Amino acid sequence: MHLAIAEAKKGSGFVQINPLVGAVLESNGKVLAKGYHSRFGGPHAEAIALKKAVKKYSKQEIARANLYVTLEPCTRRGKTLPCLPSIKQSGIKNIFIGTLDPNPGEQGRSIRALRRIGCSVKVGIEQEECDYLIRTFRKWITTKKPFLLGKVGMSLDGKVTHPDEKRYITNTLARDRVHKLRQEFDAIMLGVNTVIRDDPELTTRLPGKRVSHPMKIILDSRLRVPSKSKALDYNTIVVCLEGVTMKRKRSVANTGATILELPPEEKRGKQLFEQMNMQVLMKELGRRKISSVVLEGGSYVFTTFINRQAIDEFYIFTAPQLFGATSLPFTYALQYTVSLQNMKVELIPASKGAEVGTADDADNLLVRGYAKYN
Amino acid sequence: MHLAIAEAKKGSGFVQINPLVGAVLESNGKVLAKGYHSRFGGPHAEAIALKKAVKKYSKQEIARANLYVTLEPCTRRGKTLPCLPSIKQSGIKNIFIGTLDPNPGEQGRSIRALRRIGCSVKVGIEQEECDYLIRTFRKWITTKKPFLLGKVGMSLDGKVTHPDEKRYITNTLARDRVHKLRQEFDAIMLGVNTVIRDDPELTTRLPGKRVSHPMKIILDSRLRVPSKSKALDYNTIVVCLEGVTMKRKRSVANTGATILELPPEEKRGKQLFEQMNMQVLMKELGRRKISSVVLEGGSYVFTTFINRQAIDEFYIFTAPQLFGATSLPFTYALQYTVSLQNMKVELIPASKGAEVGTADDADNLLVRGYAKYN
Repeated sequence: MHLAIAEAKKGSGFVQINPLVGAVLESNGKVLAKGYHSRFGGPHAEAIALKKAVKKYSKQEIARANLYVTLEPCTRRGKTLPCLPSIKQSGIKNIFIGTLDPNPGEQGRSIRALRRIGCSVKVGIEQEECDYLIRTFRKWITTKKPFLLGKVGMSLDGKVTHPDEKRYITNTLARDRVHKLRQEFDAIMLGVNTVIRDDPELTTRLPGKRVSHPMKIILDSRLRVPSKSKALDYNTIVVCLEGVTMKRKRSVANTGATILELPPEEKRGKQLFEQMNMQVLMKELGRRKISSVVLEGGSYVFTTFINRQAIDEFYIFTAPQLFGATSLPFTYALQYTVSLQNMKVELIPASKGAEVGTADDADNLLVRGYAKYN
Repeated sequence: MHLAIAEAKKGSGFVQINPLVGAVLESNGKVLAKGYHSRFGGPHAEAIALKKAVKKYSKQEIARANLYVTLEPCTRRGKTLPCLPSIKQSGIKNIFIGTLDPNPGEQGRSIRALRRIGCSVKVGIEQEECDYLIRTFRKWITTKKPFLLGKVGMSLDGKVTHPDEKRYITNTLARDRVHKLRQEFDAIMLGVNTVIRDDPELTTRLPGKRVSHPMKIILDSRLRVPSKSKALDYNTIVVCLEGVTMKRKRSVANTGATILELPPEEKRGKQLFEQMNMQVLMKELGRRKISSVVLEGGSYVFTTFINRQAIDEFYIFTAPQLFGATSLPFTYALQYTVSLQNMKVELIPASKGAEVGTADDADNLLVRGYAKYN
């Protein structure tokens, strides 16, 4: 199953809004074939593994093999043929499944069908990891809203700006990791203040040929975004409040960006930004088949989304520094406290030979986990 | 050397103001004898190991062995005989030393003496760890001031109080670890506000017979500490500003506690607490042979000591929670940013079967490192 999970990850960034799936066909400890779902609408992992196996092994050899697949096989025709019939035809008797189909209408259907024809089907192998692979798909398929990952780069004392404003907080490898996250997700979302202050490109900067750039979503209630901002292009949605002037809208629309006007929230907060109706935004993004969003802050944005219990998971990159109260905090006052469930911690090493005193000179931590609101 | 380091740690909490030292006598991969410095004024690690070896092995066997010792042997008679002559007499030729004597007058003396009689002496074996063993001794012997360890228990966003004030932030194992720290250090220091709010006992709660209780130091410029506080006894120093009324002093002195009056700082800050002269305090504690202090906060205390660059090392226990801006922060505005050097991270696991939603339900992190002020 570990091999199947590793296979699944190869599709990362290219299968949205489908789930990541990997499959391995094994016999007496030998891997006959592997497969993964590699692009939206492309063939499924199990189908690929079986097709590869057929070329090299006899029908009898395949029938004796064990099939490991990270997600319950599909039973219905979508963009491709369903996987269930091909598994049935293969004659394979032993099937190990990571986790069930999160789609309530489909859940357990293929398990029951396989057991009916006499297969031994074990479900829940390395389930935590297999569930993690499909966390964004699960959210979208069950709620029709995108999975929201809050990505923060901060100091040990929870500050998101360096006292010397121009300096990085986290190290190069941590920032590379953020680019990997962006590639894996459908969209990046951030507040207009960050766009005005930093004028970021918000692209995925990764080595290799196969790179997917996420959609960019800018939260900008009054449509203050400068029309020359690097982030504005055909791949950008600028979200604002209803009632912005036509002139501002035209100037932003001329960059190719889409303008999404939201109704105000019924309860008015102090921040203008907070007046946009976030529930409507989430539904609208889901409707546009955006199944996963990396939320990249600042303080107001995080405070707002936490207070609406809207963030599903946090990725907190931490530099071993204390900045004190003059730097901007991760959040302002919260209506809920947040616990990180299934917390995982990774050390993200400093760069070799980095200049002493720079962000690259220090190991960073990545602390991640699902958000639970208390 | 790893074995010698493990030996050294056994003396933890009982050797102050001496350093922690461990020694191992090894021959052809076999450990002939081990020893550690186990109490202040007691015999030294090398002497113990050699004495044990003499009982079981011939002079020839001992002379052929390798001696590993975490710290350079002493040359001068203190409370015990010096170690150098006994090593010379043993005839041992191969000596491995973790780190040099930090005392400038002694440093390198015994190495040179051993080399003069033809010994092979290698210095710097596992030096980082051996240096860590004697970090408090090094500070005290070179500056005559105590080593200050800042111990913090906080949320991921750097808050040191739970929104529900009565609840713990960190889990039971993290709090056990704090008791171990207290045992290893000469004193605990904290602000009077914590004493007034929590009325802590400030003792070392650890299993086992051999427990040392650290001195308690309460920072209390106006001598507001209630005379019934549990922390007040013969093992307590209450630090206040000169000019406190005799009546207050008498009431505190009656508990057995020592009152230490400090002159004010020349530059007056806003906080009354900040007006005590911390340089004088540090010198006075050093003079009283307090070589290591665990500083246990609150926010004002940490801010003050960071702004005086007085904290040598941080132990930051972190719970995977976000509390937001209504909780008290680790520090207020800082004059310096702090980097943690040689950062180490440990996972401190949740308690099995802990009630969901309590502090014990979550893994914690211990992030530690030397403080560097920028």
